[in-house]
Amino acid sequence: MTEAAAWLETALAAADAAGAVIRPYFRQPVTAEMKSDESPVTKADREAELAIRAVLSARFPSFGMLGEEFPAAEAAGRFTWVIDPIDGTRAFITGRPHFCTLIALLEDDVPILGIIDQPISGERWIGQRGEKTRFIAPGGKIAGQVGTRLCADLAAAECSCTSPDMFLADQKPRFERLKASVRRTSWGGDAYAYGLLALGMIDVIPEATMKPWDWAALVPVIEGAGGAITDWQGRALDIGGRGDVLAVGNPALLPAILDVLR
Amino acid sequence: MTEAAAWLETALAAADAAGAVIRPYFRQPVTAEMKSDESPVTKADREAELAIRAVLSARFPSFGMLGEEFPAAEAAGRFTWVIDPIDGTRAFITGRPHFCTLIALLEDDVPILGIIDQPISGERWIGQRGEKTRFIAPGGKIAGQVGTRLCADLAAAECSCTSPDMFLADQKPRFERLKASVRRTSWGGDAYAYGLLALGMIDVIPEATMKPWDWAALVPVIEGAGGAITDWQGRALDIGGRGDVLAVGNPALLPAILDVLR
Repeated sequence: MTEAAAWLETALAAADAAGAVIRPYFRQPVTAEMKSDESPVTKADREAELAIRAVLSARFPSFGMLGEEFPAAEAAGRFTWVIDPIDGTRAFITGRPHFCTLIALLEDDVPILGIIDQPISGERWIGQRGEKTRFIAPGGKIAGQVGTRLCADLAAAECSCTSPDMFLADQKPRFERLKASVRRTSWGGDAYAYGLLALGMIDVIPEATMKPWDWAALVPVIEGAGGAITDWQGRALDIGGRGDVLAVGNPALLPAILDVLR
Repeated sequence: MTEAAAWLETALAAADAAGAVIRPYFRQPVTAEMKSDESPVTKADREAELAIRAVLSARFPSFGMLGEEFPAAEAAGRFTWVIDPIDGTRAFITGRPHFCTLIALLEDDVPILGIIDQPISGERWIGQRGEKTRFIAPGGKIAGQVGTRLCADLAAAECSCTSPDMFLADQKPRFERLKASVRRTSWGGDAYAYGLLALGMIDVIPEATMKPWDWAALVPVIEGAGGAITDWQGRALDIGGRGDVLAVGNPALLPAILDVLR
């Protein structure tokens, strides 16, 4: 087995473990008496992160680990796992089956492996540097063909954004300009929307205030499907960056979009 | 078989027929060369509406028929079907499996039967006047228990809204006031979000500019789950109304919300 195959096998096992933890908490009632640290999403998030960490660190004990719920572990070498057990907390809380488990592997701070996993539908996107992204749905029951759409005209573009409230003050008017330049904007989606962009269903996603665990897994998935993912200046996403993220299906459309966002 | 059972059986058969038409179009590529009247969503919408109409009118030829795609048929008596083959056009276009088929039966303009059907996940909500709403997921694979949440405090409420762009000029500031009064707002969802409210996952949905086929099926589902659904004045929804819709899980919270929306 190659190194890359071992990383992938382990990441998929970690996603499986996370899904097994998360599923029983999905759509469980929240009562007014519950403390917020006992809510189903909090418990699912923490327990799933522990499950993911256990699988990954058993196999690759020297790799670093960066996640939302627990302190980061420094890497002894060049590799770091970056994980988000439940991306789309609001989606999970409101019972929407598009929240995702995200698992990425960074080599020298560059994402080289990314998994987007939806534990309810079973949909799973796998991105590996230098390889075509794969989309898997159990039993082939949910359609989807990998490959971004080469939308050549911004005015014809399908735009998607998780929330109009995610932008910083200086970003909001820039987002609004982009929204006014596209054909349509649809709302909600979290990481799942990036999976749909990789399937050619969405052309552009401008988002902001994202943490590394929100975007790291998306990079190999988008790039391996033919798209591009950068910050709002067109630069590679950076662990120490501000968290503004721009994904486009057609990389040739990137300069025009960056112009609008400037 | 009672009359109500015959209506339900026929409505479910129509939803089945619509799903069979719609599924092959889901996540099919759209090319730039396609005319808009050839797009997968347009074809799916029109063909599914024809399939629904065929099933309903074969069994109940004297009933009226109101849908988005084809001219209305006048009722010979007191009953009218109100149908939307694909509620959530943007969701369908962008490959999100939460668009829904909606089928309602009106008696003297009052919805007495409502079906919310998601043809990809197979989730289905059934509301009948005077009966508890039912939620069905194939093989019980997707969790969900019918019953709205009795959230007693607006500040703790989960709010959901399909799009910040759906409001008329006078409604936008009123919506913003409500949004500022709740705990959290999540975006997207279309009719599916009303299904989630019926499962106790969402507490309030304020929407606007909805057509009768967008809301008629929601009424029996919400009411049969313990919630309330009115316009922004607290009045019963009306076929000739303006299309502002307010659904709440806890009817006791309605006066406070109407106050904020005034």
